[in-house]
Amino acid sequence: MALVRYPSAMRRLINELSKLPTVGEKSATRLAYHLVNGDERDAMLLSESIKDCQEQIFLCSRCFFLADEKLCELCQDKNRDSARICVVEKPADVIAIEKSGGFAGEYHVLHGLWSPLQGKDPTETKLPELLERIKKASAGSSPVEEVVIATGTTVEGDATALYIGNAVAESGVKASRIAQGLPKGGELEFADEVTLTHALRGRRAL
Amino acid sequence: MALVRYPSAMRRLINELSKLPTVGEKSATRLAYHLVNGDERDAMLLSESIKDCQEQIFLCSRCFFLADEKLCELCQDKNRDSARICVVEKPADVIAIEKSGGFAGEYHVLHGLWSPLQGKDPTETKLPELLERIKKASAGSSPVEEVVIATGTTVEGDATALYIGNAVAESGVKASRIAQGLPKGGELEFADEVTLTHALRGRRAL
Repeated sequence: MALVRYPSAMRRLINELSKLPTVGEKSATRLAYHLVNGDERDAMLLSESIKDCQEQIFLCSRCFFLADEKLCELCQDKNRDSARICVVEKPADVIAIEKSGGFAGEYHVLHGLWSPLQGKDPTETKLPELLERIKKASAGSSPVEEVVIATGTTVEGDATALYIGNAVAESGVKASRIAQGLPKGGELEFADEVTLTHALRGRRAL
Repeated sequence: MALVRYPSAMRRLINELSKLPTVGEKSATRLAYHLVNGDERDAMLLSESIKDCQEQIFLCSRCFFLADEKLCELCQDKNRDSARICVVEKPADVIAIEKSGGFAGEYHVLHGLWSPLQGKDPTETKLPELLERIKKASAGSSPVEEVVIATGTTVEGDATALYIGNAVAESGVKASRIAQGLPKGGELEFADEVTLTHALRGRRAL
């Protein structure tokens, strides 16, 4: 391999960068070159912030979103509606929903989906912790009234939603699933059949 | 911005990652999430290798390729033909040519091209150092016989090649430019006119 021509520190950097998702050897080389040849301060800041994240970031003990204290910023917020819990697959989904401004309740991050093909059971996600959380809340003064399941509309997302819906119903709490239908700006002509079926089935009175 | 929901260390990491070329906020968030949630050892190795590169990598004092000593690995190699210097824009181009195995001489990395549109003069590249290097070699026991200009075939690459060709010719050394023509696997039907003109003009006896 001609990469051997690079100094060893550069080769190690290229190697570490190629471990990142969506980064192949070519991108890794370009990024490494930028880090070596670009602004020295930026490179050091990046190095330090990776280290800081490793040392300072944990999962929130309640909702499993990212946190730098025992509870995340959302769980510390007393103004959120604790009667409603929105269940999502990963932390970035929380940010997406927060950006929409359409939800004022609390979250629960599963960190995974039910994926039989990858041999991943629903109990390997944070689902047991969700059920425990609901049980605890019911015993206390602020019971959970609704669990809004906001997993994606992939096969795994749908299966997980169904599974969680059943589990939640067993604890006597209402479960709902975010609507499926035409996205904003969607044209009927180009919509796929599954989306159209969902849009029709989910129609609402005007 | 809803990103404010992330812990501050995470936000700093996303911010630093978005400064990398071709990485926008979405990719930066995905990469940051991977670094926080993935293998802890990998994240620390990446952090350290960025720091190591900043501390250990410089430009070779002779050819301006990347080096961790005064001279890069290529300039230290006594088996290279010092009568031939291949001029390229950036370090990655050296690797590309080394991979091809088609060149056994030495290199000179310009770290830039003549780009009037970006207000970049040829003298802002390492061209003055190339001319100095040729002059010194001519005065010594191993003069340079040929400068192979291997800049890209973009407007800037062509302009720089022409400029360097003239400057090198003035010092009495032969300058050549890598061939332009059909790439391997290329079909006549789909080749652009400029490429075809170059391919025809550069035809060689069989």
